[in-house]
Amino acid sequence: MKLVFSKSELSKGVNIVSKAIPTRTSMPILECIMIDSTEGQIKFTANDMELGIETIVEGDILEKGKIAIDAKIFSDIVRKLPDNDITIQTDDNYNALITCENSKFNISGKSGDDFSFLPVIEKQKSIRLSQFALRELVNQTIFCTAPNDNNKMMAGELFEVVDSELKVVALDGHRIAIRKKKLEGRADDVKVVVPGKTLNEISKILSTDADDMMNIYFSNNHILFEFDQTIVVSRLIEGEYFKISQMLSSDYETKITANKKEMLGSIDRATLLIKESDKKPIILNITDGNMEVKVVSSIGSLNENVAVEKEGKDIMIGFNPKFLMDALGKIDDENVDIYLLNPKAPCFIRDKEENYIYLILPVNFTA
Amino acid sequence: MKLVFSKSELSKGVNIVSKAIPTRTSMPILECIMIDSTEGQIKFTANDMELGIETIVEGDILEKGKIAIDAKIFSDIVRKLPDNDITIQTDDNYNALITCENSKFNISGKSGDDFSFLPVIEKQKSIRLSQFALRELVNQTIFCTAPNDNNKMMAGELFEVVDSELKVVALDGHRIAIRKKKLEGRADDVKVVVPGKTLNEISKILSTDADDMMNIYFSNNHILFEFDQTIVVSRLIEGEYFKISQMLSSDYETKITANKKEMLGSIDRATLLIKESDKKPIILNITDGNMEVKVVSSIGSLNENVAVEKEGKDIMIGFNPKFLMDALGKIDDENVDIYLLNPKAPCFIRDKEENYIYLILPVNFTA
Repeated sequence: MKLVFSKSELSKGVNIVSKAIPTRTSMPILECIMIDSTEGQIKFTANDMELGIETIVEGDILEKGKIAIDAKIFSDIVRKLPDNDITIQTDDNYNALITCENSKFNISGKSGDDFSFLPVIEKQKSIRLSQFALRELVNQTIFCTAPNDNNKMMAGELFEVVDSELKVVALDGHRIAIRKKKLEGRADDVKVVVPGKTLNEISKILSTDADDMMNIYFSNNHILFEFDQTIVVSRLIEGEYFKISQMLSSDYETKITANKKEMLGSIDRATLLIKESDKKPIILNITDGNMEVKVVSSIGSLNENVAVEKEGKDIMIGFNPKFLMDALGKIDDENVDIYLLNPKAPCFIRDKEENYIYLILPVNFTA
Repeated sequence: MKLVFSKSELSKGVNIVSKAIPTRTSMPILECIMIDSTEGQIKFTANDMELGIETIVEGDILEKGKIAIDAKIFSDIVRKLPDNDITIQTDDNYNALITCENSKFNISGKSGDDFSFLPVIEKQKSIRLSQFALRELVNQTIFCTAPNDNNKMMAGELFEVVDSELKVVALDGHRIAIRKKKLEGRADDVKVVVPGKTLNEISKILSTDADDMMNIYFSNNHILFEFDQTIVVSRLIEGEYFKISQMLSSDYETKITANKKEMLGSIDRATLLIKESDKKPIILNITDGNMEVKVVSSIGSLNENVAVEKEGKDIMIGFNPKFLMDALGKIDDENVDIYLLNPKAPCFIRDKEENYIYLILPVNFTA
């Protein structure tokens, strides 16, 4: 095999498929990128058996062939080579000679006979949205997933499509994140649970340009993302997701509207006084027009007033400050509405259209 | 005590003296910044008994007094407060109330009766140079210091002034870095060993502006740096420094001139194939007009040719690539001259005026 790439194309290809390389594995073949040019185009594939990525890389095929190369060393080499044409040439013993300008790297590859290419997915259902939109949806919810041996659902996100609206849900037992997105064009109804790891990795390779579209296909056991020259296939998490609707409620006794940045700054300062170990809550004391943010810890105390608009009853309620910050940090609006019922009931941060809903359970505190 | 600062002035002051706060200590008072406004100006001091820093901070004194405050929590609070006036007020029990806009932090301080202010140094000798110059001298040599329980000299740098020329030397048993700098104005002859830690910390707070000058004073046991509104005092390392002149030699059999960036790129790529554990050298095979950079390891091999100008004999010699990269990375010149004698003798990278000399010991290799 003999292939010639520009450094930028090669880097891009390696970077994309590397997202499916496992960090730890006992099977060396899973740590490899398969380079396959036998069919007239150059295809890079990596597959850790849960998540597989395949991308077409532009380059000249001087001699067809295929080889599996260790992803880590290959990507290190590509990254450090000069910005010029890079040639990859292999011999019958699967030695790969990588040359660029005056550099000649020699590393041994593998035949890849035991390499697993992506499974063929039956494209039963599909939706279409911009890559940017998916990236945003994932970014705004993924922090609520929680790898949990007792409940594998918490490591995933619910993708539910009803009437051309995609709803993405993540929860970890203390909080829930929900984001909705109207889809353009025809969309099938869908209800699947996608591994958080898959979403995390794919969001790193999606375009940030709102014009770049992608298709997502669903089979019984798999989800397939198709964009640009790339295909990502992942297993789904099997089983029934949590019944979210039972956890949501529109009852409230207190509604406040606060400037998001001010509130975030206040809570951020409060965390200074909280050591990881002692798990002190911050206390919000909400009265007419004012939210007092309070912390008392072994280090010291903070009192801070944030101007708010308030409807309904006064309330004093405690939270894990990290959960409030995580949610507020994912909201783009200048002002946020927060709905509260009582000091034992969850609070809801949501916009009027319910494009986003963040539910956070309160914690006990001693006033 | 009641003081008012702008956030930027307060941040600056805290940042400067924090460089003398030890990372680990069993004496809580050493972790404190002493704020002293009893004498009509606001003075911040930190002192770990080896290294002490004192700086004058601009602010309004509404009520004189002094207090010692934990540096870490104080600097965290200052950093996260809004960019506005910050007031620090203390009561008779050394509680500090730190207020800014709507935030009120309450933390407990200490009387500081057991705090050690900087020792008074007899200014026996002095030199003067720009802050930028000292920063550069330190940055270009400090990587050759090596904390070593068996030889405390290796943890320090020699500062030697002869005939208004400052020479800074560091060595770690495998390599030596020497930098020279002509001083303007009158300068005393000096020969002292300054702890690397002191130089490391001071270089973080020196100005990057070549016009900002500083004075350095020497007593028998201390060095004192004076710049802007700040004084840094450090103990010296006592004892005799290594006899450098015996290690230097101008004999050579081979001289090469190489493009620094090309050579650095080549060695950087070679390190990809070297695992930390197996300590493989890189081999330089120098012939007329060419330097071949070679590595063979369990991962693979690299051969790379770098065009050089050569005078004298061909030579093949092995090096720890990190040592070559460290030295080359500190040289600003486009081309570097390297002097070699034989595969067992040190190589010298130096400019014609000997403003810099980097000596590196070779390592054995099997060709």
